Amino acid sequence: MTTVLKIGGSLITDKSDSHTIDERMLDRVAAAIAGADPDAIVLVHGGGSFGHPVAAAHGITDRDIVCDPRAINAVVAAMTTLHETVLEVLTDAGVPAVSVPPRAIYRKRTDGTLEGSTETIAEILAAGFIPVLHGDVVVHDAAGFSVASGDGIALHLAGALEADRIGLCTGVAGVLDRDGKVIDRIERFGEVADAIDDPEGTDVTGGMARKVQTLLEMSTPATIFGIEQLDTFLAGNRPGTTVSRA
Amino acid sequence: MTTVLKIGGSLITDKSDSHTIDERMLDRVAAAIAGADPDAIVLVHGGGSFGHPVAAAHGITDRDIVCDPRAINAVVAAMTTLHETVLEVLTDAGVPAVSVPPRAIYRKRTDGTLEGSTETIAEILAAGFIPVLHGDVVVHDAAGFSVASGDGIALHLAGALEADRIGLCTGVAGVLDRDGKVIDRIERFGEVADAIDDPEGTDVTGGMARKVQTLLEMSTPATIFGIEQLDTFLAGNRPGTTVSRA
Repeated sequence: MTTVLKIGGSLITDKSDSHTIDERMLDRVAAAIAGADPDAIVLVHGGGSFGHPVAAAHGITDRDIVCDPRAINAVVAAMTTLHETVLEVLTDAGVPAVSVPPRAIYRKRTDGTLEGSTETIAEILAAGFIPVLHGDVVVHDAAGFSVASGDGIALHLAGALEADRIGLCTGVAGVLDRDGKVIDRIERFGEVADAIDDPEGTDVTGGMARKVQTLLEMSTPATIFGIEQLDTFLAGNRPGTTVSRA
Repeated sequence: MTTVLKIGGSLITDKSDSHTIDERMLDRVAAAIAGADPDAIVLVHGGGSFGHPVAAAHGITDRDIVCDPRAINAVVAAMTTLHETVLEVLTDAGVPAVSVPPRAIYRKRTDGTLEGSTETIAEILAAGFIPVLHGDVVVHDAAGFSVASGDGIALHLAGALEADRIGLCTGVAGVLDRDGKVIDRIERFGEVADAIDDPEGTDVTGGMARKVQTLLEMSTPATIFGIEQLDTFLAGNRPGTTVSRA
């Protein structure tokens, strides 16, 4: 069973403070992954307080194309700093993690679609390693660079690698309704559009409502859950909210 | 005209001292590239005193396959440190450089061949940027990781991107004979095998003799030259030693 696991940037960083890692949380993530079957996991982490503030400061979003090399490299540098720490904590925990920077793979189209060959990722996986990707800047329609979100990359990978499931480990226990209760299952966006609680933040790549909408376009079933449920998810279960077209 | 330019790791680092950048030399490289037509250059830099000592310490060569994630990540971290400085110096000099880590692209076969899609690199180039790659560790026959040298990557790119020429900017002015004189042109290895001066070093990916042998397997003409000739090369000339099958 191949699992694509996205670890939210807001989970492993302190989003209220720029360039700050939540070490305790990152350790928990690493311990959970270390206890799972590594042959079958592709990991993607978001930008949290590293990627997002830098991208926002330079006007780089997942829609706006930027051509200033210094802006592009500032986002790359911020993401690389976070990414290297993630790799270090994972390998220290015994996880066979290998860094795979997405900007070397992906091209983005005007409709937001990502294109790119995942053959190398499949071979890294076949060799028994856990490929670790991250939200990144990627070339956009041969015109400049824009953001490829960790969510977008995770979704592309799930399709390209024909993953059995995709898990989004976030800062909350699932998709919450306005009473703060986890919605168990979502099959159509219309049925929850009004109910989803979606606080605004500095996340340049969109919040929970957008996540749900995009997940409903996938054929791979998705599970949204919090850190408390990561072990449960990695054991093969579906905690939190399952998002799956009927 | 598409040019693949490999900058030797020994040129931009102090190989006698671990993890030391030759800033003066890196500034010269950046200034030369800033003065050239950026639309047509793909840059690859070697590992120098960053990649090679770390790879050697962990028993990672371009032949030996390593499966220890900490060893793999130690090489990645060392190369990334050098790579980030190269990107910073290039962008500060006005070069539209964008980082493209090779391990996300390449797979290596037992015969040393690299496989991987260069479509994203071609699109970055088409957008007017200079993709910058580096010697890296890559997945090897779905069994582990081994070194993909900067030379090997530059040669693959020259073929895949149908480059018009490949330039290797090294610590010396060209391929030297035993009297220290630059050999002007090499068409067959046999004619220079005994004459090439090839001092040993800590370079895990081979010295000058091997460089020449590999270049002779290419259909793209190659030029080996020193930093003094970089402007001349970028202006379209062939300083130093030209290696080209008759």
